[in-house]
Amino acid sequence: MLKLLVGNLTEDEIVSIIAKKLVSRVALGEHLTYPDDARDLLPRAPRIVVSMDAYTVNSLMLPWRTLSDVGWSALTGAVSDVVVKGGVPHGCLIALGVPPSMELSHLEELVDGISDAAKYYDVRVLGGDTNKSSEAWIAISVVGFTTARVPPSRGGMRPGDVVIVTGTYGAMGYAVEHGFERAVQEKWVIEYTKRPKTRTEISYIVENYYKAIDASMDVSDGLGYTLYTMSNLSGRGIIIKEAPRTPEQLVEICRAETRCLLKYALVGGEEYGAVLGVKQGWFKAIASELEYFNIPFAVVGEVSSSPPGLYFNGEKIPVKRYDQFKAWTQNI
Amino acid sequence: MLKLLVGNLTEDEIVSIIAKKLVSRVALGEHLTYPDDARDLLPRAPRIVVSMDAYTVNSLMLPWRTLSDVGWSALTGAVSDVVVKGGVPHGCLIALGVPPSMELSHLEELVDGISDAAKYYDVRVLGGDTNKSSEAWIAISVVGFTTARVPPSRGGMRPGDVVIVTGTYGAMGYAVEHGFERAVQEKWVIEYTKRPKTRTEISYIVENYYKAIDASMDVSDGLGYTLYTMSNLSGRGIIIKEAPRTPEQLVEICRAETRCLLKYALVGGEEYGAVLGVKQGWFKAIASELEYFNIPFAVVGEVSSSPPGLYFNGEKIPVKRYDQFKAWTQNI
Repeated sequence: MLKLLVGNLTEDEIVSIIAKKLVSRVALGEHLTYPDDARDLLPRAPRIVVSMDAYTVNSLMLPWRTLSDVGWSALTGAVSDVVVKGGVPHGCLIALGVPPSMELSHLEELVDGISDAAKYYDVRVLGGDTNKSSEAWIAISVVGFTTARVPPSRGGMRPGDVVIVTGTYGAMGYAVEHGFERAVQEKWVIEYTKRPKTRTEISYIVENYYKAIDASMDVSDGLGYTLYTMSNLSGRGIIIKEAPRTPEQLVEICRAETRCLLKYALVGGEEYGAVLGVKQGWFKAIASELEYFNIPFAVVGEVSSSPPGLYFNGEKIPVKRYDQFKAWTQNI
Repeated sequence: MLKLLVGNLTEDEIVSIIAKKLVSRVALGEHLTYPDDARDLLPRAPRIVVSMDAYTVNSLMLPWRTLSDVGWSALTGAVSDVVVKGGVPHGCLIALGVPPSMELSHLEELVDGISDAAKYYDVRVLGGDTNKSSEAWIAISVVGFTTARVPPSRGGMRPGDVVIVTGTYGAMGYAVEHGFERAVQEKWVIEYTKRPKTRTEISYIVENYYKAIDASMDVSDGLGYTLYTMSNLSGRGIIIKEAPRTPEQLVEICRAETRCLLKYALVGGEEYGAVLGVKQGWFKAIASELEYFNIPFAVVGEVSSSPPGLYFNGEKIPVKRYDQFKAWTQNI
């Protein structure tokens, strides 16, 4: 059977197929939607939070992911940036680069994954653009709204702050440490990394407790890199005391030894948890909110007045980060 | 001398170079900026207008354009979508796909062109993302604000509406009709197409006169395609009576003959003018606003109650459009 390729269709046909799967209807008080290029929105809170994330499809294509998983992961990453700043994600715009040689069914699979994620996160797809490209890519821009008068930045940590890490870490780190061939044998690695999820309820906690949260950042390029970046921008060291939440299989592998757990948990990426630097006096209140929403979290340490860096058992620990142009690099 | 390639730098270094050239500072009442992934904004008018446009760098690379011109053109196109809906463009987010083999100086040139346009249009660059890619591409998302209670859609034209076209047409059409080799000999073609400009003042006219403007659309894929799309979505024909504004050199070539002028003016693209379907009783008011801002415009015709299509001298005229996947295609 002849496979239908994207290049067999006209631009309008391709856009129409994507739009039908993705684009949300106008809401009350709105007027513009597809096929108009622009959308109109009414603010849902006093402050707008926007971000943009882009990916080549290949860079998200783990051996055990389908194109639908890639679409899911791309939207998850974009939403996560807004959530961690206290923005309740409202809508997104999506631009796709599509090779003419791509099978239409593969494009549809990718789009279905984006659509799944949009429904899951209750984020409206407002519109976007489609382009002929030699390689498939996705760019996503997210618009959210927040009641926070001062959304926390990455660099506001103060000595004494409790460092809370939400989410579960170590599965992607296992793949980094042992390679994909070994990782693909581990069901739990696949389970945790196939369709990463961010928790949008975190936006409510951040917007309500913005005065208590000195700094926040989502984990997209590895927990170690996130902690290091926050430490660096805050001009303060972070004393790591405990590992974050990890899959039980990793606890077994590490025999619950913190140093071993950290080895896996600090490298990785795409976990899309949040790192929060929280004033001590507010820790209990925020912890109980996280419990209320059933969001896994751990207190991994405390901000100190020592120079920037991550410290464990009195020693500075090296931090690796995945660099798109250099692959895994040692940062410090 | 060894040329520095993008792939010689780390991701953080590349992003930092781009951010320094592009990213705007926080404004009064705002808090987040680079290196944070998200930005916070305060609404500047009751309604938000958003859009997203993306391009491969090659698709914008006319033989007489530099990479800086390409950057300029990309932002112009993205801004234009918001302007024509009555949105005053406020800020943008920019994602770049960059091949490691690209010379750093070329990337900087591209970014400088975006920066030039951002200054020219008074649009803030709020942030974005950078990705390793096999081919260079740009995705731009624009956020604007409007006081218009009902921004005009593409499909609201009513019989009797005056069809106003702003901007100057025919230079890109000359390149389409005669090919780049001949077009490059014509200074006026280069002048009109090297760095196309959209007129942001149109946003003020549209937001103030939204009740008088039944439909609006910007011209990005050729004036003929724009007129045809509006006609089609409105379910009404457009009677073309006059050519739009054209360069004087084309008037000479065509000996001021309308059919000849239309041949060049209807094909083309990237002119980024606006097509407005205006209620007859409001035509004078809107024309005097356009004159006040010194925006070139022409009345090209009128909406009729005949079936969708463009009619000239009683005959339906065929409409070509540039399709990314099929190149120039006949639509009707």
